[in-house]
Amino acid sequence: MQNFFISEKIENFLKAEKLPTPFLVVDLDVVSENYKILKDTFSNSIIYYAVKANSEPRIIERLMNLGSYFDIASIGELEQCFSVGVSPDRISYNNPVKKPDDIKNAYDLGIRNFTFDSKGELSKIAKMAPGSNVFCRFGVRDRGALWPFEGKFGCSSEMLIELMVLASNKGLVPQGVSFHVGSQQSDSSRWTAAITEAAKIFEALLMENIDVKVLNIGGGFPIKYTSEVIGVRELSEEIAAQLDCCFGSNKPQVFIEPGRFIAGSAGLIRSEVILVAEKEPDAHERWVYVDIGRFGGLAETFNEAIIYPIRANKSKAELGPVILAGPTCDGADILYKKNPVDLPINLRDGDYLDFLSAGAYTSSYVTAKFNGLPAITEYYI
Amino acid sequence: MQNFFISEKIENFLKAEKLPTPFLVVDLDVVSENYKILKDTFSNSIIYYAVKANSEPRIIERLMNLGSYFDIASIGELEQCFSVGVSPDRISYNNPVKKPDDIKNAYDLGIRNFTFDSKGELSKIAKMAPGSNVFCRFGVRDRGALWPFEGKFGCSSEMLIELMVLASNKGLVPQGVSFHVGSQQSDSSRWTAAITEAAKIFEALLMENIDVKVLNIGGGFPIKYTSEVIGVRELSEEIAAQLDCCFGSNKPQVFIEPGRFIAGSAGLIRSEVILVAEKEPDAHERWVYVDIGRFGGLAETFNEAIIYPIRANKSKAELGPVILAGPTCDGADILYKKNPVDLPINLRDGDYLDFLSAGAYTSSYVTAKFNGLPAITEYYI
Repeated sequence: MQNFFISEKIENFLKAEKLPTPFLVVDLDVVSENYKILKDTFSNSIIYYAVKANSEPRIIERLMNLGSYFDIASIGELEQCFSVGVSPDRISYNNPVKKPDDIKNAYDLGIRNFTFDSKGELSKIAKMAPGSNVFCRFGVRDRGALWPFEGKFGCSSEMLIELMVLASNKGLVPQGVSFHVGSQQSDSSRWTAAITEAAKIFEALLMENIDVKVLNIGGGFPIKYTSEVIGVRELSEEIAAQLDCCFGSNKPQVFIEPGRFIAGSAGLIRSEVILVAEKEPDAHERWVYVDIGRFGGLAETFNEAIIYPIRANKSKAELGPVILAGPTCDGADILYKKNPVDLPINLRDGDYLDFLSAGAYTSSYVTAKFNGLPAITEYYI
Repeated sequence: MQNFFISEKIENFLKAEKLPTPFLVVDLDVVSENYKILKDTFSNSIIYYAVKANSEPRIIERLMNLGSYFDIASIGELEQCFSVGVSPDRISYNNPVKKPDDIKNAYDLGIRNFTFDSKGELSKIAKMAPGSNVFCRFGVRDRGALWPFEGKFGCSSEMLIELMVLASNKGLVPQGVSFHVGSQQSDSSRWTAAITEAAKIFEALLMENIDVKVLNIGGGFPIKYTSEVIGVRELSEEIAAQLDCCFGSNKPQVFIEPGRFIAGSAGLIRSEVILVAEKEPDAHERWVYVDIGRFGGLAETFNEAIIYPIRANKSKAELGPVILAGPTCDGADILYKKNPVDLPINLRDGDYLDFLSAGAYTSSYVTAKFNGLPAITEYYI
């Protein structure tokens, strides 16, 4: 494990005091920095931070002050945005699956932007949020994403046209078309292919006299864990070229919805080693158990999808392979077994393991009470 | 969906009042009933309820009053037992992965039974809980379990012998040997094979002058979800015959650690349909989204391991296949896709879906704040 980014502020925080583990520490300056990188890279786009990645109000506040907009999934997230003063016109309610009362509540609170991908959802929006701006999401291939959508969201292009005509007839304002290539997507052709399809959709909509203004190209921008990924600048150039190619001088306003890219690299999770075990004499691999696991925040290790860089406090020792597991009595609480981790052979209980790039999709997934273990503590510095 | 067990008390509760969804309702009388069935079936065994299955104090209290003992995984679960008055001698701290301070705290609170499966854990127990009774867990094949351990716990027989000798030398009392065949295990040969191995272990321990008194055959007793499983009476007979065969007149005291069997069939989760969607014209399958999902309590749908029986409120309608998904913006929050569910073709948003046999391993897994959605409400009646 070398050359991994940990901010000086976080390093100083870790040195200052021995804190009870497990904990997440997030450097808010890195959050700001990541926002600025995206703003600079996608200079003509409007950024909607995907609140679900890390809904901490101090993150939302930072981003609000930098000019960010917000993509929310629920009334709970809406309230978190309001708690730091985000104005409703900067919020878009983009979960395509909403309860009627939640739509009404959001509308009553000033929200005017809603996403849908089905007739049923459209009917609810028309009734509960009359006259609102609507965005219709079409489904795209998301193979290559480490955390894909599995077809959960997005309709076909053909159905999108029908639905937007219907939206217009119901008095809603067809404002934009959206897609999402899946989280932690490293294959840039997923975006370019989707943009090609979007351009055809825009044309077909025009034939129906529907002139949408916005293309929401979603999130999914990858960050570096243990494997190299396409750089965001290269990706943005490919996306810009494809927009030029498909839309020419008639380009729509582009929205992006980053979550992981903004919060991920800003956070580190420190865990304590509870046990190093060999299960038989001369075992090839050791089992190492730490005090955070699948149910305590590392949910994205599900099927070993996200492989975090890990730093031990004995970095100069010889390394050997370990199976890494969480602290609960649950067989599903194994972090890495198909992909053993190389860790110091002199690792012992009481040592630390730091999970890097752990600021997004970690604390948000913590279970409230599984196995009676306390939830992870969070520090935002 | 027919002939599924829902207690009259729960049916009356559901009829009495329209409550906000999602909620879990557990019939405490069914919990008692399930305990009594096990007590009657495994008449010579001591029952340790696996608190992690559902740690609700009212369940613990019921079982305490019926004479149950308790298998805990953490200090948090210990406190839950104490909160209703369980005495420390009825508690065994069986998580083989414990922090030293947690062992010490448990010891200071009167706990004298600890499980381990490695040298590292043994050293901690010897230091923090001197003179305690110890149980060593060996690993067994758990293929056939719907929720297996994947080798996370249990050492080899060979290592068990070494560790028990070491335990004795360190002043601990080698009290028993344990194994666990994995949760929701339907293959009775997993128990019988493990008992054969246990008998050999007991013999080998005697050769070392270690006379253990207890065989803990764990939990894993299956309950009926959508597939038939071996009945607990048949299973107990096979287990009893194997104990006779392997141990003869020299049988150890048997402990069992049921969790799912006691709490599972006692609970029902009611969810509301948020959306029924077709994603393309003439789609073969509909997508149905409900207000509980992978992160709201149905974590055991992970890889579609547990397939709950589901009841809709329009039970007489024609059925058609649906992909069933949870309410979050997460692609992992799909409940059944490889195994589509047959649900009424006239199902609409606002309808109910009831997940049956949902009293164990549901509320315990709920995430605290993912997607800003409120946690499931729990009723114990």
